[in-house]
Amino acid sequence: MRIAVDVMGGDHGCGVVIEGAKRALQADDKITAIYLVGNKAEIHAALPEGGFRDHRVRVIHAGEVINMDEEAATAVRRKRDASIVRAMELVRDQKADGVVSAGNTGAIFASASFKLKRIEGVRRGGIAAVIPTAKQDFVLMDSGANIECKPIDLAHFAIMGNIYSKEILGYANPRVGILSVGTEANKGNELTLGAFELLKKLPINFIGNVEGHDLFENHVDVVVCDGFVGNIVLKTCESLATAMFSLLKQELKVSARRQLGALLAMNAFRAIKKRMDPEVHGGAPLLGFNGAVMKAHGSARERAIANAIQVAARNVQNQVNTSIAREIARAKETLLAAESSVFPTEPA
Amino acid sequence: MRIAVDVMGGDHGCGVVIEGAKRALQADDKITAIYLVGNKAEIHAALPEGGFRDHRVRVIHAGEVINMDEEAATAVRRKRDASIVRAMELVRDQKADGVVSAGNTGAIFASASFKLKRIEGVRRGGIAAVIPTAKQDFVLMDSGANIECKPIDLAHFAIMGNIYSKEILGYANPRVGILSVGTEANKGNELTLGAFELLKKLPINFIGNVEGHDLFENHVDVVVCDGFVGNIVLKTCESLATAMFSLLKQELKVSARRQLGALLAMNAFRAIKKRMDPEVHGGAPLLGFNGAVMKAHGSARERAIANAIQVAARNVQNQVNTSIAREIARAKETLLAAESSVFPTEPA
Repeated sequence: MRIAVDVMGGDHGCGVVIEGAKRALQADDKITAIYLVGNKAEIHAALPEGGFRDHRVRVIHAGEVINMDEEAATAVRRKRDASIVRAMELVRDQKADGVVSAGNTGAIFASASFKLKRIEGVRRGGIAAVIPTAKQDFVLMDSGANIECKPIDLAHFAIMGNIYSKEILGYANPRVGILSVGTEANKGNELTLGAFELLKKLPINFIGNVEGHDLFENHVDVVVCDGFVGNIVLKTCESLATAMFSLLKQELKVSARRQLGALLAMNAFRAIKKRMDPEVHGGAPLLGFNGAVMKAHGSARERAIANAIQVAARNVQNQVNTSIAREIARAKETLLAAESSVFPTEPA
Repeated sequence: MRIAVDVMGGDHGCGVVIEGAKRALQADDKITAIYLVGNKAEIHAALPEGGFRDHRVRVIHAGEVINMDEEAATAVRRKRDASIVRAMELVRDQKADGVVSAGNTGAIFASASFKLKRIEGVRRGGIAAVIPTAKQDFVLMDSGANIECKPIDLAHFAIMGNIYSKEILGYANPRVGILSVGTEANKGNELTLGAFELLKKLPINFIGNVEGHDLFENHVDVVVCDGFVGNIVLKTCESLATAMFSLLKQELKVSARRQLGALLAMNAFRAIKKRMDPEVHGGAPLLGFNGAVMKAHGSARERAIANAIQVAARNVQNQVNTSIAREIARAKETLLAAESSVFPTEPA
């Protein structure tokens, strides 16, 4: 597997991304090539003394960078020599199988759309965030790429999320649910009610609607929603978890007695942090494009980058996209029939 | 202030609700009457030996109950003698000023709509959940009553949430934000983009869009969204917080060392539980109706019921609804003008 790594994305500079790539190479000998894509001078300055000494590493120069605050689609169109664009082109030109970037999410999405194109039959690509819980992780798709969706998009997210959770998380028969405001079939908005009619026709383990209450109680493995709702849910969870940890830290410092208690119980806190650690997955895949695209968190450090690269490699190895293409094609007639019965077109 | 309490709602039976009412009466001598509305025989069986011995308490018989799983609007129409319907009628007939119920949320909303009517000028009533954070609480409105909304509804939620957070939470100049997927003015869906244009014209401290990341970081006091998003966010937060506490509990039991640590640090956990305790507010108000309506949590116990009754009383005392009527009337022209410039009607 050959992975193009956009070393210019991320908050910690290209040295951290390069070190992440190094660790991925050490950990996984099925990775046959890593392209470090970015400013050549910066890359060489950040490389360890004497270079990588790994024949699998190649440096690809890209003269521009898309920053975190740039309007994504415009930036991708204008900056033809941007690192993320060059990385995508390596996949387009069949020199690489996947891309990892900790840069601007919108730019990763836009450059994947422009350069890789969507898998045949997929109406919209989406972001499949993997969210840790006390018991097991669940996939949240779409977690931010598509603000306005149609029911058919949610059906495609269900198909893609289902395959991803099987192939990458190893779930045998993932429970797929639509995020809504009640578990009954008649609870939801126009979008989710329409999607419900489509999902129940698919050859997946569709468990119906799930509510916010179900997310952290091991009731569901793949949570389907539009990118507006998904993005808000994802960020709210991150915000709440962080706030609870920092409140705990603050309260444990209040007295010597509490400090001693915290010291004795330290391994419990460590176990929770480890369980809830988003770095394990290294980032979120963009599904639906011809290539294994991983968006790493902007704040990703070496370990998260290394994990993201390995997840991208596993995505290629397990032929996630081949399965997506097959299942989307297989569902096509079913979805068309369901759509026309649920949303009959007005007579002319 | 006179409060009608639906004693038939809630998971723990009418004894718990009645005990909550008793505590509210003890705590607040500005409450001049409490109506216990429900099945007379059950109420008398649950009353303490010799009755309440408080001349402020009256029992009002209602022969029916709306259960948690009933379709709300239908149930309210059919069960004319339901406790929640009778409680609302006491407000309609000006015998009471507010209603507290731990019953079916949809039924509370539907009976408020049918019996109390909306405050003049308010297009839709909504639920204003008060969510605790490490620093201070924020209001989330609408947190579940209105699945599909228009921009004008979000503007009304902003006005109502603003007043509620001033009068009940005591915030001098609440920061009002629209829940969206980016802080920039151009980030959002059709609904939030439209609402943004309206909110910026209102005489409130509108801080623009807020993201999920902002919710628990003391960036915003009133979070405006449609009831679909609000309900999902509210339940997701409850689910995640509960999951984190139970994970902590479980990890702290693993070894004798951790158990000792937990014992020493116990007050830290207690402080956090206290800080994040939703019972302090007793429930969420339904704003926009002619009466002070409080929805208590289904699982509310005595203390939560007592708090909900006291919040309803404060709502009456501080004339929240008078302020809402005034501010909605004051904003009418501004909103009409903004609406017609943002959403021009097609020429006929």
